[in-house]
Amino acid sequence: MSGADIGLVGLAVMGQNLVLNMADHGFRVAVYNRTEVATNEFAAGVGAANVAAGSIVPTSELGELVAAVERPRRIMLMVRAGSVVDAVIGQVAPLLDRGDVIIDGGNSLYTDTARRQESLEAQGLLYVGTGVSGGEEGARHGPSIMPGGSPGARELVEPIFEAIAARADDGAPCTAWLGPGGSGHFVKMVHNGIEYGDMQVLAEAYAVLSALGCDNQAMAEVFDRWRAGVLHSYLVDITAEILAATDGDGNAVIDQILDAAGQKGSGRWTVTTALELGQPLTLIGEAVMARQLSSLVDNRARAAGLLDGPDGRITDGQLSIDDIELAVYGSKIISYAQGFMLLAEASAEFGWDLDLGVVASIWRAGCIIRARFLDDITEAYRRSSDLANLVLDEFFADALATAHPAMRRVVAVAVSAGVPVPAYSSALAFYDGFRSGRLPANLIQAQRDYFGAHTYERIDRPRGEFFHTDWTGSGGPTTSTSYDA
Amino acid sequence: MSGADIGLVGLAVMGQNLVLNMADHGFRVAVYNRTEVATNEFAAGVGAANVAAGSIVPTSELGELVAAVERPRRIMLMVRAGSVVDAVIGQVAPLLDRGDVIIDGGNSLYTDTARRQESLEAQGLLYVGTGVSGGEEGARHGPSIMPGGSPGARELVEPIFEAIAARADDGAPCTAWLGPGGSGHFVKMVHNGIEYGDMQVLAEAYAVLSALGCDNQAMAEVFDRWRAGVLHSYLVDITAEILAATDGDGNAVIDQILDAAGQKGSGRWTVTTALELGQPLTLIGEAVMARQLSSLVDNRARAAGLLDGPDGRITDGQLSIDDIELAVYGSKIISYAQGFMLLAEASAEFGWDLDLGVVASIWRAGCIIRARFLDDITEAYRRSSDLANLVLDEFFADALATAHPAMRRVVAVAVSAGVPVPAYSSALAFYDGFRSGRLPANLIQAQRDYFGAHTYERIDRPRGEFFHTDWTGSGGPTTSTSYDA
Repeated sequence: MSGADIGLVGLAVMGQNLVLNMADHGFRVAVYNRTEVATNEFAAGVGAANVAAGSIVPTSELGELVAAVERPRRIMLMVRAGSVVDAVIGQVAPLLDRGDVIIDGGNSLYTDTARRQESLEAQGLLYVGTGVSGGEEGARHGPSIMPGGSPGARELVEPIFEAIAARADDGAPCTAWLGPGGSGHFVKMVHNGIEYGDMQVLAEAYAVLSALGCDNQAMAEVFDRWRAGVLHSYLVDITAEILAATDGDGNAVIDQILDAAGQKGSGRWTVTTALELGQPLTLIGEAVMARQLSSLVDNRARAAGLLDGPDGRITDGQLSIDDIELAVYGSKIISYAQGFMLLAEASAEFGWDLDLGVVASIWRAGCIIRARFLDDITEAYRRSSDLANLVLDEFFADALATAHPAMRRVVAVAVSAGVPVPAYSSALAFYDGFRSGRLPANLIQAQRDYFGAHTYERIDRPRGEFFHTDWTGSGGPTTSTSYDA
Repeated sequence: MSGADIGLVGLAVMGQNLVLNMADHGFRVAVYNRTEVATNEFAAGVGAANVAAGSIVPTSELGELVAAVERPRRIMLMVRAGSVVDAVIGQVAPLLDRGDVIIDGGNSLYTDTARRQESLEAQGLLYVGTGVSGGEEGARHGPSIMPGGSPGARELVEPIFEAIAARADDGAPCTAWLGPGGSGHFVKMVHNGIEYGDMQVLAEAYAVLSALGCDNQAMAEVFDRWRAGVLHSYLVDITAEILAATDGDGNAVIDQILDAAGQKGSGRWTVTTALELGQPLTLIGEAVMARQLSSLVDNRARAAGLLDGPDGRITDGQLSIDDIELAVYGSKIISYAQGFMLLAEASAEFGWDLDLGVVASIWRAGCIIRARFLDDITEAYRRSSDLANLVLDEFFADALATAHPAMRRVVAVAVSAGVPVPAYSSALAFYDGFRSGRLPANLIQAQRDYFGAHTYERIDRPRGEFFHTDWTGSGGPTTSTSYDA
């Protein structure tokens, strides 16, 4: 019997499901898990038929795993991001031969991936960092896969990834080689950041609908209706189901869940990276911070009894359901525009030559943010591959022209009623800021020049010429100081 | 003649002014600059009288500087933050003796300061990282000084810092030993972050007043009037002067300045650190990103011609000047509450035992954010040193009770008129979120549990117990996976 096509390390749910998915598509997969009991349970349980058929090969040592795989070997890690990845690489790499590839399918930070690629290439190995999105179901039946890394590894991973990935409506697999270094994990990070934004935007719709007096069933019906419109997406699907879900006693599950949102890091990474690269990802920033605020349960309870404000009810007739749908839609467009700004800037900064239309296209199915909407983004970048900003595309400019009056109504009404809508507010502020020929940032430049002699540019002179005003008449020097503001 | 009390490296404007300030207060200061021409110009120029009197001692080599200072030596660096600080430390440290102290007065990242302290203490030296705020004027006539580092260095730096610092109205010097490690630079970082917020909050007032049709002179008068009220502060002072400033031809300087705001990093660091420590600093986040958005001048110009929206005019009678003053005030309270949340969390996380009342008290004078307002914050923490959040203090809760209706009016009107007010919006969303007994984060937890089996807590069970719902009925396992969302 010939060797395995790929070896996979790490049999948590995502790893197990990827293995089953690969086996479904005709690949032989050798598997290994640090605690052997997981391997045995998998081999005796959901993997049993494949083990019997020889398409899954359980192994109990890394050396056995490596020996079971055909050369050039593909060894995929589905282990916890962070130091565990380094540890496993440290164990596996010495067992491999020149030209073999290690593939990290976890949510690693893109800078770690770039570092690992460099280190492994110095050892004659190839390295790939790939995003895998879609949760357990996606891993099992077709995720969105976002690989990048050693150029020479592309042909080794593509056949498997194209076979197991989700397929868009046009039949294209939702995977594509994205570029060198950490580009794959960067794209996955931005995907996750956008996911934070999408979830916050839907949570605000839930809050506004609640403020309007809708009960869970009514809200489930609203979300169900939205599935057929511009918001058609996986997250709207599951929100409709969640709002309708009851426990054994007929009580709504949603009402029993504590309103303290957790997070694991990739939303925060997206915002931190955006700040470093100078890109204003305001909506995702607000979404991450809204989760952090929600987790302050005790202080919020104290504040609720102490701080004055409206009662959070919106009276009938102030807003329509269509207004809320458009507020979600407009906010999503802004959030994706911001996310693609970050992708474009990273691509330029790191020399990745990312194809943004391809990125949008591989998010069309399989992943958590999958939505009809991504077809429109794909098409926008196909129309104009050098589109400077998504909202400058005609389709999206038109969509925002339709949406912004509703966004204004929702924000104005929510703000007056005391219902926090940080994502909608930030989306609208970005929209109005971006279309402002004149922002008040000239005052900020004047202040910085006043107290720190930071200098400013002038509207009537070319960029890059800097001027200083002696504001106080005390004749400070015009050179900029090290003072930082 | 006895040796110098302190040696100072780096004669850019901030360094020069600190030296003159020290000399004014009876200290002998040896000075050195990498390019000797700066030393010579300083010694022959603004420093000439002090050089003649022997209170400033120019030197042309680091060894000469070190030799000129009494032991235990105090060597203060006023050089560019980053690798330059490491380079200078690398040159100076070998020339020093056990028990000497190196003081970094630049805007270093607090983690760098902690690292340097550790490294220098291992060499038998002491290290202090200190924030110095107030711009050129503050450095010359009394800055706010925020030192932290080697505990043994405290008595070496305090006499000088207390002599040269600004004094609050009650006569107390605006400096205090803040703690070990990077605590001083951390406090300075948050100061600068708050400064970003304050500037954005005032810039939005300028934008709203402009939208109301006020000309520069009318706005200068508004800001001048605000100097006597709750907004009494240095930044309001200089804004009034900036708006009134004209060039030689009688044209308003403010109108000639390009609306593209620069930044140097400490605002971004504040937000990044807040994200890492789980603190929702939404207003400073929006302020930093508003600067980033403003700098996209070319794309904004294209968007201005393309994107639909209101014309940015607010008609008479929709808002009063008092509404805007209260929106600024309420937003400032929220921003400071957020900043102090970050200080409290960092203090707990790093074991600094920061006294937040002391932090507020040393910002009362000398620094860029100095304001009457800081007396109120100082008093709030004196009333209750374990205040869980600034807005839970009675004074500030009352102030927000007065301010929030105006904040709502300003945001609702601005949003409807197409005037971006991201800082006011985020402040209000935070206020309403913080006082919400129930946020929609339960939906986010449900979504995370649905697609990733992340589990959730329940409202009727203790924190720390986690539950999973089999939402689809397909019976996924309840263990959380490595999938990250």
